[in-house]
Amino acid sequence: MPDAEAEYRHKTTVSAKIFARSRRLHVNGVHHNIRFFEPYPFVTRSAGGRHLVDVDSNRYVDYWMGHWSMILGHAPAPVRAAVRAQIADGWMHGTVSEPTMRLSAALQKSVRAAEKIRYVTSGTEAVMYAARLARSRTGRRTIAKIDGGWHGYASDLLKSVNWPFDVAEGSGLAGAENVVSVPYNDLEGSLDALRGVRKDLACIVAEPLLGGACVPAEPDYMRGIQEFARSSGALLVLDEIVTGFRFRFGCAYPEMRLDPDIVALGKIIGGGFPIGAVCGRKEIMGLSDTGPGGPARADRSYIGGGTFSANPASMSAGAATLDELRSGRGSIYPKIARLGEEARRGLARAFDGKAAVTGKGSLFMAHFLRDGVHEVRGGADAARCDADMLRRYHFELIAREGIFFLPSKMGAASAAHTRGDIRSLVRASERFSASAP
Amino acid sequence: MPDAEAEYRHKTTVSAKIFARSRRLHVNGVHHNIRFFEPYPFVTRSAGGRHLVDVDSNRYVDYWMGHWSMILGHAPAPVRAAVRAQIADGWMHGTVSEPTMRLSAALQKSVRAAEKIRYVTSGTEAVMYAARLARSRTGRRTIAKIDGGWHGYASDLLKSVNWPFDVAEGSGLAGAENVVSVPYNDLEGSLDALRGVRKDLACIVAEPLLGGACVPAEPDYMRGIQEFARSSGALLVLDEIVTGFRFRFGCAYPEMRLDPDIVALGKIIGGGFPIGAVCGRKEIMGLSDTGPGGPARADRSYIGGGTFSANPASMSAGAATLDELRSGRGSIYPKIARLGEEARRGLARAFDGKAAVTGKGSLFMAHFLRDGVHEVRGGADAARCDADMLRRYHFELIAREGIFFLPSKMGAASAAHTRGDIRSLVRASERFSASAP
Repeated sequence: MPDAEAEYRHKTTVSAKIFARSRRLHVNGVHHNIRFFEPYPFVTRSAGGRHLVDVDSNRYVDYWMGHWSMILGHAPAPVRAAVRAQIADGWMHGTVSEPTMRLSAALQKSVRAAEKIRYVTSGTEAVMYAARLARSRTGRRTIAKIDGGWHGYASDLLKSVNWPFDVAEGSGLAGAENVVSVPYNDLEGSLDALRGVRKDLACIVAEPLLGGACVPAEPDYMRGIQEFARSSGALLVLDEIVTGFRFRFGCAYPEMRLDPDIVALGKIIGGGFPIGAVCGRKEIMGLSDTGPGGPARADRSYIGGGTFSANPASMSAGAATLDELRSGRGSIYPKIARLGEEARRGLARAFDGKAAVTGKGSLFMAHFLRDGVHEVRGGADAARCDADMLRRYHFELIAREGIFFLPSKMGAASAAHTRGDIRSLVRASERFSASAP
Repeated sequence: MPDAEAEYRHKTTVSAKIFARSRRLHVNGVHHNIRFFEPYPFVTRSAGGRHLVDVDSNRYVDYWMGHWSMILGHAPAPVRAAVRAQIADGWMHGTVSEPTMRLSAALQKSVRAAEKIRYVTSGTEAVMYAARLARSRTGRRTIAKIDGGWHGYASDLLKSVNWPFDVAEGSGLAGAENVVSVPYNDLEGSLDALRGVRKDLACIVAEPLLGGACVPAEPDYMRGIQEFARSSGALLVLDEIVTGFRFRFGCAYPEMRLDPDIVALGKIIGGGFPIGAVCGRKEIMGLSDTGPGGPARADRSYIGGGTFSANPASMSAGAATLDELRSGRGSIYPKIARLGEEARRGLARAFDGKAAVTGKGSLFMAHFLRDGVHEVRGGADAARCDADMLRRYHFELIAREGIFFLPSKMGAASAAHTRGDIRSLVRASERFSASAP
């Protein structure tokens, strides 16, 4: 694709210089592996509403939206105001702080499983602690997860994230032998794998929508694995870091009639400031109580915090975000779901059978079919699609259309997006579809 | 101590109500286990300069300083201004951003080991990834750490943090069998333990000042374990999350003539916003390169990032903090070291042989001696001191003197503290010493 690359290079000369410097300072120039793309990622100067602006003053309509965390758009005014007010009162108290109560009250009202909440600093930490709590509760070691399920970089869950799922994710990973991975939306296949580890199964960790492939879970599948967990004495841990407050004001699981033991949250609930949250049943969360009345050292589940747990900036930004979402839930969620639906329909039309378009609510993703893959129901299907074509599609949008998806990743509509944005995206996709071989 | 407790309860009635609510929402009411103290921790409303103000409008001179991260004081004006400016441009770009380059340039100039830098979201994550890099580099599994050394809650290092060091830190910890712990500042004892795991030793992780006990490492000790690591084909990982930019503009290790392979940073370098940094030699950090030219999947060290890695708010706050520290280094570091020295001398005088006072530079801590413990050279000595008396001392300072140490933890002087503060602290300590049995 020399033309698109030439166009991109031409319009991002300042980015090229800064990124060359970034490569000297940082491994591959980035701080999250997925943020790199060829020939080099542009460097962002500012973000507001639905836009990113790069250091060459190019403006992009953003569907990456800060790892899908900015559901109200970038730098929304009410959250900005809340953070500015908090900054004046200090952002790192290192103690118990008031804004935490506001965020937790909103969470507890809207997430039934959140009988007790523990804030941590990232989603990686939240799922790591959820797995530890499950091990503490059950006295077992094995963690089951979904093929293609991504739960951050913690040692306890770093297996079967990338295709091929049976190959180690890298070197230096002590503990992967305690993880078993099962095929998404394939209940028989999953139960077959789970039966083999039943007696040592501490928990099953799953997402209501497989974030890496943008594939919603089938409710029957989720209820089936929940049933297996229950009958095996294992816990169901839902990773709702992407899905929490994404489709409705609360988690995705009630609509699937699920009853998880632990729910991990992040992203949206921090309003874009660092956060993770472990939420769960009282008796399970209580295992981590190191105060008076908590379990003995041998029994306790010794989990985070860290320095930044429940820091006032994240708490204030999160509380302001949930306030906005709650008061606007009657309009925001229907609006972004409609944008998502229009995107899915429009892209399906644009690619006319060449791509499967998956998603739910405001989330959507195109998968370019090949090799006899006709539908995308899980991580394996998604992995067998044409990844090069997907990268090329996303790159052309960046280079030629002023539209930003993080290459290879699903897109998210925010409250700041418009129907006109989606129409432009669809037209741009039609142009790509017409020009692609 | 009914009197101090009664005084505390009397002046913190609003805190009591809010904390009762916090306990209904959260495990033991807190998000970091150490933030709880009896009968309940006060709830902070704001922090500025050297002060915390609670929701009952009590003001405390703070020596906890946000887990020792606010070296310039709380909410220092230049950092506040930088963050406010960043907030206007968005705080979660989810892409490569400019402020990262400013922070990294400052780090690379002042930390020689930081040939390459990878930002993550917390210190817990930074040390977890450092351990993984060491395992990838060496093809070995065993991590050696120091008795009493605290490196966050990651599964890979959660062993021998609390006394007694040979008892598990809790349940549900898969992987602790790969950790060996050695006695601090006891080279022969350490080498004895290390020799037993020499062939499988991936790295030794140590702090230049044992944060949990506020005990500086003896340079000969550190050089001895470094020498052992080198001769064994293992790496030296320094956890400078507390000590980095605490004693000088840079890390603590050059003054000990150490040459670490990996350095973990956090706290100060983020200006109080969430941050962790893995810094190290090019060839080691390069193992984590997932871009073109990086190692094959089987060899790569698959480490973080996450959503919040290198987020613009943390990067801007960190860069502004390092700017201030660099331009003011000639006055700030001598000043806070003098305050620390005056505190150590004053407390030693106040406790007149009843306590050992340890520390370095701006860090200091009293240990109440008993059971034939006459000096505190490591975690075991500190653990054998009178922990109840230390809690009582810190609690009386909170209840009666308007002085805040997180009970049981070391104190840190910041650039916002004054000699008058230290004199007040010493006088308060004299009163406690005179009244204590």
